Amino acid sequence: MSQKNTYNVAVVGATGAVGQKMLETLEDRNFPINELKLLSSSRSAGSKMKYKEQELVVEEATPESFEGIDIALFSAGGSVSKKFAPEAVKRGAVVIDNTSAYRMAQDVPLVVPEVNEADIQNHQGIIANPNCSTIQMVAALEPLRDALGLSRVLVSTYQAVSGAGNEAADELREQSQAFLDGEELDAKVLPVKGDEKHYPIAFNALPQIDVFQENGYTFEEMKMINETKKIMHMPNLSVAATCVRLPFFTSHAESVYIEVEKDGVTVEEVKQLLSQAPGIVLEDDPASQKYPTPLSSAGKRDVFVGRVRRDLDNEHGFHLWVVSDNLLKGAAWNSVQIAERIIANQWL
Amino acid sequence: MSQKNTYNVAVVGATGAVGQKMLETLEDRNFPINELKLLSSSRSAGSKMKYKEQELVVEEATPESFEGIDIALFSAGGSVSKKFAPEAVKRGAVVIDNTSAYRMAQDVPLVVPEVNEADIQNHQGIIANPNCSTIQMVAALEPLRDALGLSRVLVSTYQAVSGAGNEAADELREQSQAFLDGEELDAKVLPVKGDEKHYPIAFNALPQIDVFQENGYTFEEMKMINETKKIMHMPNLSVAATCVRLPFFTSHAESVYIEVEKDGVTVEEVKQLLSQAPGIVLEDDPASQKYPTPLSSAGKRDVFVGRVRRDLDNEHGFHLWVVSDNLLKGAAWNSVQIAERIIANQWL
Repeated sequence: MSQKNTYNVAVVGATGAVGQKMLETLEDRNFPINELKLLSSSRSAGSKMKYKEQELVVEEATPESFEGIDIALFSAGGSVSKKFAPEAVKRGAVVIDNTSAYRMAQDVPLVVPEVNEADIQNHQGIIANPNCSTIQMVAALEPLRDALGLSRVLVSTYQAVSGAGNEAADELREQSQAFLDGEELDAKVLPVKGDEKHYPIAFNALPQIDVFQENGYTFEEMKMINETKKIMHMPNLSVAATCVRLPFFTSHAESVYIEVEKDGVTVEEVKQLLSQAPGIVLEDDPASQKYPTPLSSAGKRDVFVGRVRRDLDNEHGFHLWVVSDNLLKGAAWNSVQIAERIIANQWL
Repeated sequence: MSQKNTYNVAVVGATGAVGQKMLETLEDRNFPINELKLLSSSRSAGSKMKYKEQELVVEEATPESFEGIDIALFSAGGSVSKKFAPEAVKRGAVVIDNTSAYRMAQDVPLVVPEVNEADIQNHQGIIANPNCSTIQMVAALEPLRDALGLSRVLVSTYQAVSGAGNEAADELREQSQAFLDGEELDAKVLPVKGDEKHYPIAFNALPQIDVFQENGYTFEEMKMINETKKIMHMPNLSVAATCVRLPFFTSHAESVYIEVEKDGVTVEEVKQLLSQAPGIVLEDDPASQKYPTPLSSAGKRDVFVGRVRRDLDNEHGFHLWVVSDNLLKGAAWNSVQIAERIIANQWL
């Protein structure tokens, strides 16, 4: 495809939690759009959404919707991506897919630009956007891996409900009010909409995100484990994850333990590397109680790191607290950022 | 002291979050009380509280309050314990102290009955009740240490606001309603009442519990590290902790990674050991989405364990999810349990 100045962009799943943030991010970044097409399932077709000063009507996605599209941003669930991403590619579009449908496929690059931007150029039409909790973690780990080597990652997550979509956020809001009013809590969505049992999330913590796998890990945990290895090109990296859903709306936090390979690394060295890394903001000063929180990072595109300290028993071990807006760097912004890098590098 | 059938018991800090639970627990356990004396600071003196069918008036604590007391349960802050515990001991009482004042003192046993009940008999008048987040963790680890050996513990906590007292619980309630009403959040208590800055806890996560130490760890984290080593009699055990305050009222949850010494241990073996251990309830069946949560464990005296699984990279590594009511096993129940063991063993 020859270089253009503006592009025809489709957003699939435009009315969802991530889709809405994609529109906002395209607008905030003043993305070079020629024509913007908003697509959805038949259920949401006909909805109206605003982009800049325009009012756009959401259309039902069909294979023909992708005629003339240059870049298609997908975030409407794995089955929609499986059905329509190949149709979009067949019609000449590059697909940036925010579902888990293609992430582990060998011919699909799985990309966090701060970590493996160069992988984009190997794409065969589809580029996968990683899982939200994975993105912020690898973005924080990459500058350390690069300078210090990395042999082990152990993470426990503190994840916002918006990662499970608008319905989950509504459920938290309704249950919270019911709890404060002394009423019974009605649980229909979390931990996993399609799973058999549902538990209240308001004033609670649920150690299940996505469905359980045969090995006793949840799919969310396996995504963090497998995607981290793929993005960082470290198939033998030791990675473990425990993923927990918590009663807040936006931003995931992560308690991350790592072991680096280099000897004699100081906390100052780790902080210095993080403070200079692209996309990372170091917010770390115990003396003034400075550390990132979900509320403080919501609505921002960066990954925030605090609580950096050395393990007291292992000279190579360090602890970090990593926080980022799960709908922005964890989803919409990382997808738009991939699109920006494609354009800047002429990798369409 | 000769054996009696009933005892004169004082509860110091009776009006606080833990003090209230101490009264409930003494009543639930039908503790053999002759006379019950409720003590507090001058601020709360005069309050009335119920024990069984009696209405009791809370008195201001003075050294003379402890005349004739056999067992004094302290939970009114470290400075109150420092001031009055020696006065109680001088007058012949055994003190069970729920503050951090004496926990690391060499001549003070630090006790979780399921782990180190025998240490009680070395007391010189004061027995310390460990930190809430430590108690539930060591209770879950002890049966594994005993059968499999234990070389490493790495924990990330998910802690309820009631651990910071009734004021913190009120703050969560008020902020939650303000947030739902679209109002500004007023933060005056959390993360630490006496610290300089305060941040909203409603729909948020605060990676600070208690004040920061020079080494970058919080005091809560150092309590978990140091108390675990003391209770388990393992000064060289590798322990690391990240402690996080979360927006729920009751029960702490913990994502715990351990390494055992024995080779070839299976997940079934770990589950079997936990299911047979005193004070532990195994709630673990991924196929039926069975795992403990803060809401499901609140109001119960046991420690609940779920999500038991082997680390995917380390044959000796296992992950656990440990949940317990921080005001019961984490405080009031563990204190009353120590008192029960003292009586049963005639260790007064």
